[in-house]
Amino acid sequence: MLKELVVKNRSYRRFDENVPISTATLRELVDLARLSASGANRQPLKYLLSNTPEQNALIFPHLAWAGYLTDWAGPAEGERPTAYIVMVGDTAIAKTFGCDHGIAAQTILLGAAELGLGGCMIASIQLAPLREALHLDERYEIVLVLALGKPKETVVIESVAAAGDIKYWRDAQGVHHVPKRALAEILLD
Amino acid sequence: MLKELVVKNRSYRRFDENVPISTATLRELVDLARLSASGANRQPLKYLLSNTPEQNALIFPHLAWAGYLTDWAGPAEGERPTAYIVMVGDTAIAKTFGCDHGIAAQTILLGAAELGLGGCMIASIQLAPLREALHLDERYEIVLVLALGKPKETVVIESVAAAGDIKYWRDAQGVHHVPKRALAEILLD
Repeated sequence: MLKELVVKNRSYRRFDENVPISTATLRELVDLARLSASGANRQPLKYLLSNTPEQNALIFPHLAWAGYLTDWAGPAEGERPTAYIVMVGDTAIAKTFGCDHGIAAQTILLGAAELGLGGCMIASIQLAPLREALHLDERYEIVLVLALGKPKETVVIESVAAAGDIKYWRDAQGVHHVPKRALAEILLD
Repeated sequence: MLKELVVKNRSYRRFDENVPISTATLRELVDLARLSASGANRQPLKYLLSNTPEQNALIFPHLAWAGYLTDWAGPAEGERPTAYIVMVGDTAIAKTFGCDHGIAAQTILLGAAELGLGGCMIASIQLAPLREALHLDERYEIVLVLALGKPKETVVIESVAAAGDIKYWRDAQGVHHVPKRALAEILLD
């Protein structure tokens, strides 16, 4: 059931760094995105795969983690992602990318969840330094970075409280709580 | 396997209009989107459900269908969508919606595919007339319309030819052909 996969597919930010992700697996995940919808079928997105400690170390410092957890700078050594997929838009194909990156990122992460992996879409990126670190050609615009690994944290969905606060938070046991709006709140009459 | 669902989840534009989609089904589909990722967990998207002939008829004329099929104005009576999900961004929550609509739309359409249904993400919309037809409050910005139904056409994926043309086309038998770029083309070194 897709629903089980959707529920399993939480945004994970801490991983078991002993579990690598192979290039073959990353290619399979990108292939799922390749076969998905793209605005006017232009397919302007391209993907840079990273799964070596060396290349991962080039990417990690340029990502911002969990904006609402102000006393947490991001995953410590030993719990960092073991792979990344850097998603870029090829401006030689299109100048804007609509919501193609959302379609692709969600498909990739659902695929990762099916494999017992997990990850997080990161849009808060130091763009210029990351571009430089990866020697990305100017024609490519970074749109999203997917951090991937074997999740090593518990993430629970709960209802948004009456006050309406949607900020996720982490409890004393390290469980990550994510308030989701109720169905009734997001349906228009 | 998610891959089977991804392959099954083509963009369909012609439907068996004898097959309705219940409100309960539409709610289940939106619930999948509700449980999915949202930038900074803001969850600014809201959803208007339509599955009556009367309301569907208000929506249909404001959508543009299959831009590359220049001699086809859209599905004829009898093959039109039996439901729509109008996706809007609530500007009281956020001013921009990132790629949330891509995440949500893909999740909904994968859910539809699992049920033997199908649809199409439509971004080419006459915004002001549709807003008026639906009496949408000014705070809601239409971001995408999902057309849904029981598909009544065959859609095949093929490789982009050497010339690089990504335009989809329909053959004499009415089969819809969608050229997808090869994996090698979308992976960066």
